Formats: sequence, structure tokens, C-alpha cells
Amino acid sequence: MKKILFLLFLCPLILKAQNHSENIQKIFNYELTEGHTYENLRYLCKEIGNRISGSPQAAAAVEYTKQLMESYGFDTVYLQPVMVPHWVRGGKEQAKVLNSSKLGAVDLNVLALGNSRGTGPNGLVGEVVEVYGIEGLRKLEDQVKGKIVFFNQPMDPTLINTFQAYGGANGQRGSGAAEAAKFGAIAVLVRSLTNRVDDFPHTGNQRYNPDYPEIPALAISTKDAELLSSLLKGQKDLKVYLQNNSMMKEEVLSYNVIGEIKGSEKPEEIIAVGGHLDSWDVGEGAHDDGAGCMQAIEVLRIYKEMGWKPKRTLRAVMWMNEENGLRGGQEYAKVAKAKAEKHIAAIESDAGGFIPLGFSSTGTEAQRSKLASWRDLFTPYNIWKFDVPGGGADIGPLRDQGPILIGLHPDSQRYFNYHHTAADVFEVVDQRELELGAAAMTALVYLIEQEGM
Amino acid sequence: MKKILFLLFLCPLILKAQNHSENIQKIFNYELTEGHTYENLRYLCKEIGNRISGSPQAAAAVEYTKQLMESYGFDTVYLQPVMVPHWVRGGKEQAKVLNSSKLGAVDLNVLALGNSRGTGPNGLVGEVVEVYGIEGLRKLEDQVKGKIVFFNQPMDPTLINTFQAYGGANGQRGSGAAEAAKFGAIAVLVRSLTNRVDDFPHTGNQRYNPDYPEIPALAISTKDAELLSSLLKGQKDLKVYLQNNSMMKEEVLSYNVIGEIKGSEKPEEIIAVGGHLDSWDVGEGAHDDGAGCMQAIEVLRIYKEMGWKPKRTLRAVMWMNEENGLRGGQEYAKVAKAKAEKHIAAIESDAGGFIPLGFSSTGTEAQRSKLASWRDLFTPYNIWKFDVPGGGADIGPLRDQGPILIGLHPDSQRYFNYHHTAADVFEVVDQRELELGAAAMTALVYLIEQEGM
Repeated sequence: MKKILFLLFLCPLILKAQNHSENIQKIFNYELTEGHTYENLRYLCKEIGNRISGSPQAAAAVEYTKQLMESYGFDTVYLQPVMVPHWVRGGKEQAKVLNSSKLGAVDLNVLALGNSRGTGPNGLVGEVVEVYGIEGLRKLEDQVKGKIVFFNQPMDPTLINTFQAYGGANGQRGSGAAEAAKFGAIAVLVRSLTNRVDDFPHTGNQRYNPDYPEIPALAISTKDAELLSSLLKGQKDLKVYLQNNSMMKEEVLSYNVIGEIKGSEKPEEIIAVGGHLDSWDVGEGAHDDGAGCMQAIEVLRIYKEMGWKPKRTLRAVMWMNEENGLRGGQEYAKVAKAKAEKHIAAIESDAGGFIPLGFSSTGTEAQRSKLASWRDLFTPYNIWKFDVPGGGADIGPLRDQGPILIGLHPDSQRYFNYHHTAADVFEVVDQRELELGAAAMTALVYLIEQEGM
Repeated sequence: MKKILFLLFLCPLILKAQNHSENIQKIFNYELTEGHTYENLRYLCKEIGNRISGSPQAAAAVEYTKQLMESYGFDTVYLQPVMVPHWVRGGKEQAKVLNSSKLGAVDLNVLALGNSRGTGPNGLVGEVVEVYGIEGLRKLEDQVKGKIVFFNQPMDPTLINTFQAYGGANGQRGSGAAEAAKFGAIAVLVRSLTNRVDDFPHTGNQRYNPDYPEIPALAISTKDAELLSSLLKGQKDLKVYLQNNSMMKEEVLSYNVIGEIKGSEKPEEIIAVGGHLDSWDVGEGAHDDGAGCMQAIEVLRIYKEMGWKPKRTLRAVMWMNEENGLRGGQEYAKVAKAKAEKHIAAIESDAGGFIPLGFSSTGTEAQRSKLASWRDLFTPYNIWKFDVPGGGADIGPLRDQGPILIGLHPDSQRYFNYHHTAADVFEVVDQRELELGAAAMTALVYLIEQEGM
């Protein structure tokens, strides 16, 4: 009798789990056979292209994603205004070793870093001091006055999660120019952040220190960083010429783009899922972060196609200006707070359209345990890592409003082959990998809207 | 006191596990910083290229891998003779829809399937009957006499393991011609085995039935399969022209290439690790299976570089003729039996140089449990699947000699983008993914030579 009572008690739980499992299977099957994510990404990459904040292409991407979500019949689609910085590269940079005793004059592959100032039309010439990251600069700070500081710390290739390797080396990119300027350097060259040795310079954000001069800051390809380093070993008076026309212009009005499906039972509880719509001004911003945006739109589109009514409110958000300001993420959180909205979860995909391994998260122990409790529902899809700390840049500002912050956690081996380069184009995104990520996010949103968080 | 005794008892076990964990970390760190796998694969792909059994390139690959293993100082490197079939494509095939009422004449992207006969220089013309796999042929067997049978069963895109989807659809490729010939068909066109819809035809093996005519068998790209299918819907008298010059020539003497490091404690216990050296005659055989060969050589090279002496004998084996005969795998097993060799494990990497997810295996419950017991040593490298059934084609013939058969189990999402096509070139292999596979295999070999199996 006890046993029967126990089984009766368990029955609804088992049925519910089975139901969830079946619905998640439906999501994956649907996405892998009739998904729109890949074709939508093709349009964004090929018809619009790269889209740095403040550019006409960013405005086009705002209009495209708005129209796309409207075409899918989401309950509400709207733009959230936000002022963004407008940095322009100003044409192709030049960098050249002038006087190698071995090779003579040698062109170097470079890209100005985001927010960098230009050298002026005549460029500049300086001797080069190579340092190993920001710590290396500290050791040689009395030797860099009037010179070009060459930050040449590689990413650590032994780290399996390449984002950790990126985190370990990107101090030199983010604040190399600010730090070198303190000691009188006239420019910085920064080794590109990738484990590959190739010809692609990787741009990315950097910030000046308002108390010191704003000196030109350029990324150099890893292959040319190795070359420059080897030339410097034999010749201390090596001179490099740099020329770029980058400049910061007036701020521009732009938008976060938001699409919503209202919850049927607890509409006040919001689940935001998104990516960032802006990209750097090279390549097509395919993995970073066209992929995340198109996956987020797909989550809500799948609900419409399935005819499912979520219990809680779902929101697809295309944040603007993640790359060089984070204004969109900040504005979104500010407005949410002002309106006293209740986000129970915010999910971002901004680690590329690669096969999903799991989810990273930041939240209370209860929130993270609940997330982890769903692991078995995902392992049939090779999604198994639920203990990774993390989240996403754009959702970070929501933290103090209490939602769990979740990042799609794809395999990271190839991400830094393309990140912030001319190589981040549609062709390097695999359709099935992208779709598996979209399905994973949809399945997670499904569980949260059903079960709460 | 009991507690202390218990701890003393546990101590060696804990130390051993820690030691294993540290050595595995050394393997991964070494491979990700100083691995040769990628550069060796570049040589095989770019300097030798594709290498079908019996071709001069296959002979070059034999010599290259022999010299490479000799240069690494393995204890023994030798060739194991084996006679292989020598099939030649005979130049570019032609396929054309002749009389589409919509489009007129339309060229189709095709590749003769392995072992196919040619049409003769004048080609052949026939009406087309579309069927859904071998089962579909059974339903229409009275309608195919004098016609071209068009097998158009797609792979099932909802299967996460794409090898399962491949297995579900490749009957039409392997025996489509043999079956269609029974009912008087004059040729077969077979939909390429990939989830993508693109212009690459995928070749692959097929076998004739000796009791029926050997009719030409060609793969058609998925995009052209969709086109042909749509044209047939509107026009039943559609005629297709096919021309190819493929033929089977005399058998050729070739070799398995074997490198060995003798075991220091139990040299009679052999662990074989390998891939197949032959490829199809298009592309560069990069993922299939240059990757596996170079990974296997790397396993033994790492031992030399580390200065490690394995307890048991390690053998890197490049099997010949996996693609269209399996002669190398069969000969290897035959010789092992004749010499009364004792293989305790045979490991093959033949699923592409993608990120390793785990290992597939076939063996006794005790063997498979032992393998699974090592799982925690691999999870730091995102390698976690130890329950997949499988092994490898070349190691299959060893089965009755008792070793556990193990396959490296990489992520399979991209494999069939390239498999057996002109697109399987060095550039579509990612260095870190390839290296992680090589390190995974080395770590597994390390555990087996230390712990036995």
C-alpha cells in the first residue's frame, strides 16, 4: 500500500519529466530540419555585413532584426533608444619595419584597436621595446619613453577553455596603451589574441587613461609578432613606421531591438535571451555575435511555430554596442529597473556558433542548482557542462536585479581563430553547430518558463 | 588506528591516480604547445595529396610515414605487404539532364562511386526512376528495367550522432547498383551522404553482385539531387546522360606501415593505435583519414619526447585500403594470429580530426568497465562519453583475438560536410581539435600500457 501511494505520488513528476524530455526532442528535431537560424545569419552577414556601433550597417541591422521579428508575429517588437560611441577606423592602417639589417623594409599586418586615435597623416616612427604583457611593461617602464611598446604576451595554449587563455592575455590589449602612455611611449603594438600563428590581426576594445596622452594602439598579427620579436633579438635599433587615421566621432542614437511573447500565467516574470547586434568593423561579425542574435530570435520563433504559449514572458534582445561601450546592456538594465520589471533569467549567446557543451552561469546557489538539475535532459544532445561560472557581458548589468545570468557555453577551440578579424564570416559558421546552439537555448528557455527560476 | 591503516592502504592508489592525472596533463600540455600532428598532416595533404589504394600517391604515403616514424627513432619500423584492389576513376565524369521542359539541358555534379565500372566512351542515356533507398527500390522494382535508378534517401538530420544518420542511408550507396541491376536498371545515381545541401558529390564504396550485371554507379550532389527530384515531379520522361571511364585494374602490392616501441615489462602485450593511410581519390583525405594516421604516429612520438618507456608494447599502424577493400585490416589481423601475437587493445581514429568527446568501444563487460573507470581523468579536457558502442573498420578483424576495440569518438557535426569529397582538405582541419584528439589517444594508450586491459 505504501508502495502504491509512493508511486502515485511520483507519477505526476515522472510524467512531467517525460513531457519535458519529449518537448525538448521536438525542439531539436524541428530546429535541425526547419530552422531559420542559418539563413537569417546569412542575410545579416552577406546583405548587411559588419556593423560597428554608430555605423549605417548597425542601423541596417536594427531595422532588419526588427522587421524579422515582426514578420514572425511576436506579440511586441520595439526599439529601445541608446546613445552609442561612434569610432571609425579611417581606412587601412600601415605598419612597416624600416631598417631590418636582415630583411630591409617589411610590411606588418596590423589593425587599429577599438577607440584608438590616429597617428595623423604623416604617421610616426619609433624604436620598439618588446614587453611580455602589462607586467613586462612594469619591468621596462624606464626604457619606453619616445618609443613604441610592443606587447607580445601570447595566449596560453595549454588552457582547454580558450576564453581563459584570452582572459589571461587581454590586459595588454585593453589597457596597454593607457599604461604605456604613463611612461612616455608614443604608440603600442599588441600581439593578436589567438592561439594560431597567422596573418590576421585581431582588433578589440581598449580604453585610454584620461590623465595621460591618447597614443595610437594597433593589433599586430601573431605571425608578424613572431617576426618582429625575432628581428628585435638581433637588432635593438629596429625602427617601425605606423600610420592610421582612426578617430572617435560624436555619439550616435542607436537601439536595442526587443521582441516579446507575453506569458500566459505569470507575464510579469521575464526571461530575456539575446546576443549583441553590433560587431567590429572587419569581417562579418558572424560568430561574434550574429550567431547569438539569430539564435535568440529563433527561440521565440520556435514557440510561434510550435503554437506554444509560454507561462512566463519571453524576450529576445539584440543588445547594441557590446564591443566598444556596453551601452546597450547598461541601458537595458537601467530601463528594466526604472520600470520595476522582474527578470527571472537572462541568457546570452556570445561565445560563437559552435557546438554547445553546456551553460555557464552566475546566480544564487538555489538558481544554479535548479539549472544543474536539468542536465540529464540535455545529455542526449551532447550538452553536459552545467558547472561553468560565467554569463555574458550584456546581461551583467542586470545582476543586482536578481535573475540568474546564463551564457550558452559552446566549444571554444575555434573561436579565437576568427574573433574580431576579417575571417569572422558566414562561411566559418557550421549550420548544424549553430542550430544545436539555438535548440539548446530554446530548450533552456522552455524549462525556465515552465518551471520558473 | 583503523583509520590510519585504511589511509595507508589507500595511499598508493591515490598517489597512482594523481600520477596518472599529472602525466595526462603533461601529454595535453605538450601536444598543445609542441605537437607535430598538424604539420605532419600538412605534409601528407599538401605534398602527397589524395591516395587511393594502388595509386602512386598511396605508395608515397607508405614511404613518407615509414621515414617519418624512422626519423622519430621508434624501436622498429616496418612494412607489412598486402595486395590491394586498384580502382581508377578515369577522368571527370559527366552527367546531364537532357530534356527538362523547364530548364533544357542541365549539368549535374556527380562522382563515380568506388569500384564502379564505366559507361564506355559514348556514355548512356536513360529515363530516371526516383526511389527512397533500397526499400523504395523494392516497391518500384517492376518499373526500373532499362532505366537509371535515382536513390534519393537523405540522411536523417535529427540524429545528433551523424554517423547513425550515415548508417541509416548508406545502404543505397553500398548496394544500390547491385540491387537495381537485379531488375534490369542500366545505371544508378545515388544522393550524396551529407546533411548539407551543396554542390559536392560524395564518393564512397559500393559492391556489385557477381550474379548480375555491373552497372555504372555515381553519386550526385545533394543540391542536384533536390533539383533532379523536383524536375521529375513535373516530367516523367526526363532523360539523363551519364558518362564515366572508371575501371578496376589488376591488384597492386601495397603495405601497412607499422612503427613500434617495445614494452619494458610485458612486451608481449600489444596496444595497436592507428588510422588508415589510403583515402578516396578526391580532396586530400585530410579528415578521412590523414588525421587518424598522424595522431597515431604522434602517440608514439610523445613517448619518445617524454623519455617514457611503456610497460607494454605500443604499435602505430597505418592500415592500407580501408576505403575500398579493408585488405590492410584483414591482413594485419591474419598476421597477428599467425604469429600468435597478443593484442590487449586496438584503437582507431577514423571519425575525423574534430574535438574528441570520448571513446567508442567493443569488448567484454570487464574491458568496457575498465575503460569507463578512467572517465574522470579525461573530463578536464571535455572528454566525457565512454559508453558509445563502436570501434573501427580496420581493427574489426582483430575482434576474435580478444582485444578491446576502441574508436576515438570526436564530435560528428561537420564530418559529413567533407567526407569523401573534394572538400576534405587540410584547411578544414583545425589544429587544436586535431591535437586534442592526438592527446586523448596518447592519454588512453598511456593508461592501458600502465594498467593493462
